[in-house]
Amino acid sequence: MSELRRDPIVGRWVIIDPERGKRPKDFLQAENQVTDPSNCPFCEGHEHMTPSEILSYRSPNTQRDKPGWWIRVFANRFPALHIEGDLRRQGVGMFDMMNGIGAHEIIVETPEHNKAFVDLNESQIEKILWAYRDRMLDLRKDDRFRYILIFKNFGKNAGANISHSHSQLIATPVIPKAVREELDGAKFHYNYKERCIYCDIIRQETSMKERMVEENDHFAAFAPFAARFPFEVCIMPREHSCDYTTITKEQVLDLGKTLKSILRRLDRGLEGPAYNLALHSCPNNLTKETTWDTMSFDFHWHIEIIPRLLKVTGLEWGSGFYINPTPPEDAAAFLRDIEL
Amino acid sequence: MSELRRDPIVGRWVIIDPERGKRPKDFLQAENQVTDPSNCPFCEGHEHMTPSEILSYRSPNTQRDKPGWWIRVFANRFPALHIEGDLRRQGVGMFDMMNGIGAHEIIVETPEHNKAFVDLNESQIEKILWAYRDRMLDLRKDDRFRYILIFKNFGKNAGANISHSHSQLIATPVIPKAVREELDGAKFHYNYKERCIYCDIIRQETSMKERMVEENDHFAAFAPFAARFPFEVCIMPREHSCDYTTITKEQVLDLGKTLKSILRRLDRGLEGPAYNLALHSCPNNLTKETTWDTMSFDFHWHIEIIPRLLKVTGLEWGSGFYINPTPPEDAAAFLRDIEL
Repeated sequence: MSELRRDPIVGRWVIIDPERGKRPKDFLQAENQVTDPSNCPFCEGHEHMTPSEILSYRSPNTQRDKPGWWIRVFANRFPALHIEGDLRRQGVGMFDMMNGIGAHEIIVETPEHNKAFVDLNESQIEKILWAYRDRMLDLRKDDRFRYILIFKNFGKNAGANISHSHSQLIATPVIPKAVREELDGAKFHYNYKERCIYCDIIRQETSMKERMVEENDHFAAFAPFAARFPFEVCIMPREHSCDYTTITKEQVLDLGKTLKSILRRLDRGLEGPAYNLALHSCPNNLTKETTWDTMSFDFHWHIEIIPRLLKVTGLEWGSGFYINPTPPEDAAAFLRDIEL
Repeated sequence: MSELRRDPIVGRWVIIDPERGKRPKDFLQAENQVTDPSNCPFCEGHEHMTPSEILSYRSPNTQRDKPGWWIRVFANRFPALHIEGDLRRQGVGMFDMMNGIGAHEIIVETPEHNKAFVDLNESQIEKILWAYRDRMLDLRKDDRFRYILIFKNFGKNAGANISHSHSQLIATPVIPKAVREELDGAKFHYNYKERCIYCDIIRQETSMKERMVEENDHFAAFAPFAARFPFEVCIMPREHSCDYTTITKEQVLDLGKTLKSILRRLDRGLEGPAYNLALHSCPNNLTKETTWDTMSFDFHWHIEIIPRLLKVTGLEWGSGFYINPTPPEDAAAFLRDIEL
């Protein structure tokens, strides 16, 4: 018998339907061809193929926009939003629009074309996590931007066109809807209970264990109770913080380990599935709003990882109602049992 | 330069980015293989392969669950929700769930395996539209169900597994999130302006013309101002009604013509793209809520058609922020110019 489960934060109902009988072998085949390295703009030695670097971590005595880097960040050559200009809001009859001001950056995670994220060593992954923080801190100084989203597409089914390991960052002049819903849900819970809803979730998952995939001193990685997708995983810091940029050195160490190990479990258990990853931290510029004081108590940053194993159908688009054939408890048990 | 546009009903921001330079030829290739008719459960003569029919329109003197039908409706053999049992809501610690009570039905749109929806004659399409109404009216009598969603997946990229032309219906014990957001947005507008927001949109699109694809006496079909997807089309009745089941004979004639012609434009202009279609009517059982009185003024039923031409990436999942490379004005002009 299927079940309906409600996401406690945003109120989305999900159908958990194990009777569909989908097993890992029934899922979409990964199509992760390695793209041609000879014209890869992300490779070491090809720095001239990209816009000039905004940030890099590199060997001493090497030059900007030349080889010798470990992590390299530059503007997307085909940005969805553009950095130059003032933000102009306007009405078109009853409709609202603004010009496409924002930032859209590429974070290249390794100079080596053929190195997958799951094969990077831990110190390299830590550098990626510090680069996320550094770019967020820098872009926050620009008060046109209300939100900075960091995300990663791996594999063709997840929308990646270049196989060389990279993340993306987009800074937007509005708070994206999915984040706004989390902020609103978290505030509602806080106003009622005077507790952070994410901290409540961590406490329950830590004590129930059945949806936990792995935990360490600073992080918990679990399958959400109302997961929309099979093998969806959420990673949350145990200590309350709304803001990714407050991350400590010890937390970066533990997050790097958790991220690598979760992505390895997915890679080995599901044969290299395509996935999307998104980092939800708090919005920018909250000092201008009265909400900052409470948000620091009610919101809690986290990472969402969604393997792309099923096609999204008209039911999902039409209703916001998802059917997940893999109960999160089964997904967590499967991922826990993968040998690393 | 890209633009940010806000959906006036649900408040979703969309990036309209024509500089990405995507042309119809850059989109996903349709993979619309015709599935094998010899074991197609939707074919005439194969009625024994499905659960017993719930509704059919058929020739006089033909028998239930035998050939002779034009439209045939039965329960999905692998339903996401089950019709039997009482609805039990329960808490699991801080989480909420209920058993998977609901209905999940298949509406076979033609007895002929190889007949695509766009090739059906108008009287057949009208029968489909009446079947939608009849099933909604019947399922509304069951007060466990709060919402009835009718949707259609065409093509592999849209999640269809069987090519024989069909729609699906799902009746759910909760109001799906996407519909709840439309209801809330429409009510907010009504409370402020004392006008239906959908009627306002129709008035603006009818006078501006640039996003209109086609209109007739009873329906307007246009590309929404903040379309999430390239070539997305919305069909709305001109006359205000929150409830699809109030549709009149004249409206069914005009809706059938509009639907066929819009789907033909997409089929010819974009080479048979996969698409999802969803019908949003008002929730059931509203007499039990105080909202019914106003909802009959503030909500407005409509059909959303989404061609599946792009992969959804981590940005979309992570933020609810969509990038649409085709301005709705260009999409509408392209579709208007297709010869039928």
